[in-house]
Amino acid sequence: MTRRIPASTIRRLSHYLRSLEDLGREGGETVSSEELANRGQTTAAQVRKDLSHFGSFGKRGLGYRIDELRERLRQILGVDRVWKVALVGAGRIGSALFEYPAFESRGYECVAIVDSDPQKIGARWGELTVQGPDEIERLVAELGVELVILAVPAQAAQDIATRVVRAGVKGILNFAPIRLKVPPTVPVEDVNLVMQLEALSFAITQHGSGA
Amino acid sequence: MTRRIPASTIRRLSHYLRSLEDLGREGGETVSSEELANRGQTTAAQVRKDLSHFGSFGKRGLGYRIDELRERLRQILGVDRVWKVALVGAGRIGSALFEYPAFESRGYECVAIVDSDPQKIGARWGELTVQGPDEIERLVAELGVELVILAVPAQAAQDIATRVVRAGVKGILNFAPIRLKVPPTVPVEDVNLVMQLEALSFAITQHGSGA
Repeated sequence: MTRRIPASTIRRLSHYLRSLEDLGREGGETVSSEELANRGQTTAAQVRKDLSHFGSFGKRGLGYRIDELRERLRQILGVDRVWKVALVGAGRIGSALFEYPAFESRGYECVAIVDSDPQKIGARWGELTVQGPDEIERLVAELGVELVILAVPAQAAQDIATRVVRAGVKGILNFAPIRLKVPPTVPVEDVNLVMQLEALSFAITQHGSGA
Repeated sequence: MTRRIPASTIRRLSHYLRSLEDLGREGGETVSSEELANRGQTTAAQVRKDLSHFGSFGKRGLGYRIDELRERLRQILGVDRVWKVALVGAGRIGSALFEYPAFESRGYECVAIVDSDPQKIGARWGELTVQGPDEIERLVAELGVELVILAVPAQAAQDIATRVVRAGVKGILNFAPIRLKVPPTVPVEDVNLVMQLEALSFAITQHGSGA
């Protein structure tokens, strides 16, 4: 099942899933690849190609059944279940993320918060208590943590990553501005806002539209 | 100058720049493509290929002069200058971003904050005062805002994007979970944390390593 699927395809699958959820709420029963393409700002051919990685969907001329394709995409993206997440780093970014309603509604449940600041350890965040870094391995094991959101400074990130992976964590959403070294079986998604700003200033600069 | 440069190349250029800055601080004078590759977790051939988009650098067997390549990469990425940024959306994510030290240190200067919440309008954030949404066009024009960080709810995002682009903004860092429609000359970088979590759960699910 693991052929290599491009990251851009996976992003589009997420977009299709959003569109199918919207369409379902609007009471639709079927949708064409053209309509999905429109909502995702891509082409109908691209929609068909993206979906073809995962089997055969829809009927020529009839389109896709919305509920069927939605459930299949939820399976493919692994969001037909709850993922237990630990937030490591309870700073400003961490606290903004903790309150981010979209995570929980998509099945990403924060079950632990860890920070090294003695001022923060013991604080209540909703129903959770901020734990110290020595607790990480125990929390991962006891709570069945599969994903870690890593929002710690760069110099602390690799050590934490190594420890949580050894403890059994399967994937990391990394806010630290370094490339983590983890085994190839552990996916890492980097969130690097400075690099995204640099991509903007690069595009604007290269485009050369001065004023 | 505008051949199409892949997004992955631009991300690696950002990494090379970080490495060159580190190397410069460590007192180095030259660096090989192997060393740059090592620090960026890529290959020496990839380093040479990435840089070849922008001219000829370095000397065979001697490597690159660190200060020269660093300055050139700063020019290429457009970070050899200050970019004026407006933050639209002063919620949790917005406030975390506002305090994010890396932005200012890389030349992205927040010169305006806008929010539609009457409770927030008028509040002081550092040296800035939160402005209402009616002020957006005036702020963009008067302050010379070039980049907008858009951290508003999905339903408000397109309207704001259309208005700031019409007012002269050249690029958008978008936190709203929608695909913005803007002219093709205006680059948009989407930050979609839910989609990044879905990319992780996808990779883990497809990899099939259950327990």
